[in-house]
Amino acid sequence: MEAKLKIGILGTGIVGQTLGQKLVKLGHSVLLGTRNPSKLDEPKGRGPSARTLSDWLAEVGAEARISTFREAANHGEIVINALNGGASLDVLQSVGETYLNGKTLIDTSNPIDISGGFPFTLFVKDTDSLGEILQREFPNLRVVKTLNTLTAALMVDPQRVGNGDHTVFLSGNDAKAKTQVLELLREIGWHDILDLGDISTARGTEMMLSIGHAVMHALNPAEIAFKVVRNKRP
Amino acid sequence: MEAKLKIGILGTGIVGQTLGQKLVKLGHSVLLGTRNPSKLDEPKGRGPSARTLSDWLAEVGAEARISTFREAANHGEIVINALNGGASLDVLQSVGETYLNGKTLIDTSNPIDISGGFPFTLFVKDTDSLGEILQREFPNLRVVKTLNTLTAALMVDPQRVGNGDHTVFLSGNDAKAKTQVLELLREIGWHDILDLGDISTARGTEMMLSIGHAVMHALNPAEIAFKVVRNKRP
Repeated sequence: MEAKLKIGILGTGIVGQTLGQKLVKLGHSVLLGTRNPSKLDEPKGRGPSARTLSDWLAEVGAEARISTFREAANHGEIVINALNGGASLDVLQSVGETYLNGKTLIDTSNPIDISGGFPFTLFVKDTDSLGEILQREFPNLRVVKTLNTLTAALMVDPQRVGNGDHTVFLSGNDAKAKTQVLELLREIGWHDILDLGDISTARGTEMMLSIGHAVMHALNPAEIAFKVVRNKRP
Repeated sequence: MEAKLKIGILGTGIVGQTLGQKLVKLGHSVLLGTRNPSKLDEPKGRGPSARTLSDWLAEVGAEARISTFREAANHGEIVINALNGGASLDVLQSVGETYLNGKTLIDTSNPIDISGGFPFTLFVKDTDSLGEILQREFPNLRVVKTLNTLTAALMVDPQRVGNGDHTVFLSGNDAKAKTQVLELLREIGWHDILDLGDISTARGTEMMLSIGHAVMHALNPAEIAFKVVRNKRP
């Protein structure tokens, strides 16, 4: 039996809703934080899986709650950044380090710049990453970059593709936080969890956005994921 | 029986030597181009697989030849760019479009900037790629980016890792050239060859350098490759 965790999720788009629903199902105490918690009837996200937060609450049940970003951070022993990349730093700053210090932040965001249209580009890359920016800004937050190479549907259900035989990556400076996240990923159903090293390795996974989009476009409408295939050298 | 091809390889480092040896074994007519074809006894590359060109010639046999970059381009109906990224444009310009126009260029290079040490960065990325730069500079050359996500050993022997069950990517504007390259990759032993689309998709594979290095570092001394796992949506 896994321990029940208090989890605060920042962001109520498709990633926040999907992770939140799964974590409630797993028995965790989930609080979603959003900019305007009074506006529960606005459409969130695009596409067939877009739901209002009222619909989300009705479906997920009474165990889930929705409040402000700060309340969500305050609630969580683990905080999940499910915001889009461009909003992540601002929202964390608005929450304030008092509510973040010492906690584990699961950072699922990518530094996507949509201003130029498709193909999207990255507003930070190669010599720095969004994961590193958040870690530098909040030195006492234990940032673990993960899940950012995946669609929301795959994050919580790796079996959707290739019987789950593909890879999710971890990047972070704090070994204890990474172990905590690894255990949560296993509980979600992940088997191939690859610890890349410190938070600077988030550059690698964030920069996979380009190949990810190219592959999705080439194989549309297939769902896709990446597997790190490895052999020990003889 | 595959048709025998005339192949010119630009660059005599580990990539050029390894591809050249394999293509000679497959019965193709291979000419390696190098900056100083008279200097056959200088060490090429680093590590245990580094050989002088004299040693390479002795091992590969009389079917292979070494000459200038221009002679190699002139020889090849297919030309392979096995140069490092930083040298690629200069060398192609020194060869001149007269020797390149109408030909297929297999571009295996990556825009690696080693000036800042490890982790290496990219001198072009995200909004452009080295593949696109070469294509723009030589509009009548049919550039096909491929193999650039792999070590030289894996380029010619995908079976080394995961019984060959991993992915090699193709990017290029010319469908005929991509078919030609796809056939050559099949002859080498590749099964999972994924055509990403036009040459701009080379951004995706070139930007995989960062995740590739991170994974290799994390799993050292394992050999690694990436597999695109996919399912059709139900």
